[in-house]
Amino acid sequence: MKIGFIGLGVMGLPMAGHLIAAGHELHLYRVKEKSRSLVEQGGQAADSARAVAEASDIVILMVPDTPDVDAVLFGEDGVAEGLSAGKTVIDMSSISPVATQDFAGRIAELGCAYLDAPVSGGEAGAKAASLSIMVGGTQEDFDRVLPVLETMGKNITLVGDVGAGQTAKVANQIIVALTIGAVSEGLLFASKAGADPAKVRSALMGGLASSKILEMHGQRMIDRTFEPGFRISLHQKDINNALSAARSLKLSLPSTALCQELFNACAAQGDGELDHSGLVKALETMAAHKVAEDS
Amino acid sequence: MKIGFIGLGVMGLPMAGHLIAAGHELHLYRVKEKSRSLVEQGGQAADSARAVAEASDIVILMVPDTPDVDAVLFGEDGVAEGLSAGKTVIDMSSISPVATQDFAGRIAELGCAYLDAPVSGGEAGAKAASLSIMVGGTQEDFDRVLPVLETMGKNITLVGDVGAGQTAKVANQIIVALTIGAVSEGLLFASKAGADPAKVRSALMGGLASSKILEMHGQRMIDRTFEPGFRISLHQKDINNALSAARSLKLSLPSTALCQELFNACAAQGDGELDHSGLVKALETMAAHKVAEDS
Repeated sequence: MKIGFIGLGVMGLPMAGHLIAAGHELHLYRVKEKSRSLVEQGGQAADSARAVAEASDIVILMVPDTPDVDAVLFGEDGVAEGLSAGKTVIDMSSISPVATQDFAGRIAELGCAYLDAPVSGGEAGAKAASLSIMVGGTQEDFDRVLPVLETMGKNITLVGDVGAGQTAKVANQIIVALTIGAVSEGLLFASKAGADPAKVRSALMGGLASSKILEMHGQRMIDRTFEPGFRISLHQKDINNALSAARSLKLSLPSTALCQELFNACAAQGDGELDHSGLVKALETMAAHKVAEDS
Repeated sequence: MKIGFIGLGVMGLPMAGHLIAAGHELHLYRVKEKSRSLVEQGGQAADSARAVAEASDIVILMVPDTPDVDAVLFGEDGVAEGLSAGKTVIDMSSISPVATQDFAGRIAELGCAYLDAPVSGGEAGAKAASLSIMVGGTQEDFDRVLPVLETMGKNITLVGDVGAGQTAKVANQIIVALTIGAVSEGLLFASKAGADPAKVRSALMGGLASSKILEMHGQRMIDRTFEPGFRISLHQKDINNALSAARSLKLSLPSTALCQELFNACAAQGDGELDHSGLVKALETMAAHKVAEDS
């Protein structure tokens, strides 16, 4: 199949690589030094997003944020200028669910399908082609592109209509951030009260407090391994999407708002590029106490 | 073994039953209509906590809160009056870790051992003898009472010195409450944004957002099954212990404090006796929107 891929960063690079390896004809935009290998594998470098759209049946986006998707789709020499009826846009970036509805409407006016398909699983999941993919769109469009998505991910769910994929991703990021906050306060309490946080973590695993975050990020807090992983600055972007969308929707998310303030405090003390488990460091600064000593 | 058991409520009743079934000589205080069956099974009703302590080698407490433990131990005709050197007190209630240090010190002055051994797993775990038990005390005391604890639970961990069991339990209750808050805000966002919360929950299970709470309590929020379970009013008590201890320790727990305010809002609207997954209802009231319609 002729597939365009725009956004060849940490996530997009291995994802596009899987598509080439699966035998698809890939049209790539903004090939740089780091993504040159894709051309060596057979990918074709285009000199605009428009050119990618002209040459492809399906155009996949994997860019950082809402304004980037806007620019790539509707900017000068953008995807919209190169589309013709019957083509499909799949936005795999993590962006605003509200803006997604708007983008999809404008793409539909061109006679094209639009699916939002954000992922979770991070760089490791992208490399292993084991990403979870949360999709919004019609059942028909979903069925048509599923084989392409299966080249990049494993747990692929049609959540609902256009925007529902981004909504699920935002919900995911809310729950992940707040669960990191939960584990942070629990382990910091235990440590400050004089208990061994590693033993407390072990005692709690398996019970109601157990979570992927207690397992992975709790261990990081104890081991002081805050190299990303998933950066606080990226999680701030996702939580910003959550809070902006919530305001549009007239929805109060008090714990999410507080969590963003703690991420902001991390950024203030120079920890914005740490793994999001580094959230605990904002609380540690307030408490003048660490879950465990830095090694 | 001669074991005293004080506190024959929802949890204590089945726990004492397992000890009788295992062949121990049980001395029971405050046998009421509901706990009469224990006497029929062979337990002996005493007419004071003092009498229980006089007749037993190990005295187990399973009462609601810190003041109850204080009264049972040190009140008139209390356990302390009946203890003699070499006996052991095991407090399986969930109370303040700070007060626990004090109680243990006063019991030690009588030449007796003290272990704090709060549990998680609720009424179902108590009935099935599958409670998780978090223990604080010396290794020697722990080893000695382990066979008794194994009659009531499965995942039994010596977390540290006296008080460490209560500290772990408080950490557990912090993490559970805040994870319920996380799942509440995530699913409410998804629902308000127009997605199907059940599909979002499914899409998120297995990823970083996955937790026992998303699995069980997330389902309760979708199914609107808020019958306890574990009551909000009890969780408020535990979070009060967390916040009181944090203040003593000079520790700021902002998300825990916010969560308590949400529990307070539940109580304000008459939901204090619902399961703690009912936390979502405080957020739903603020949003004028429910995760799912009540059936």
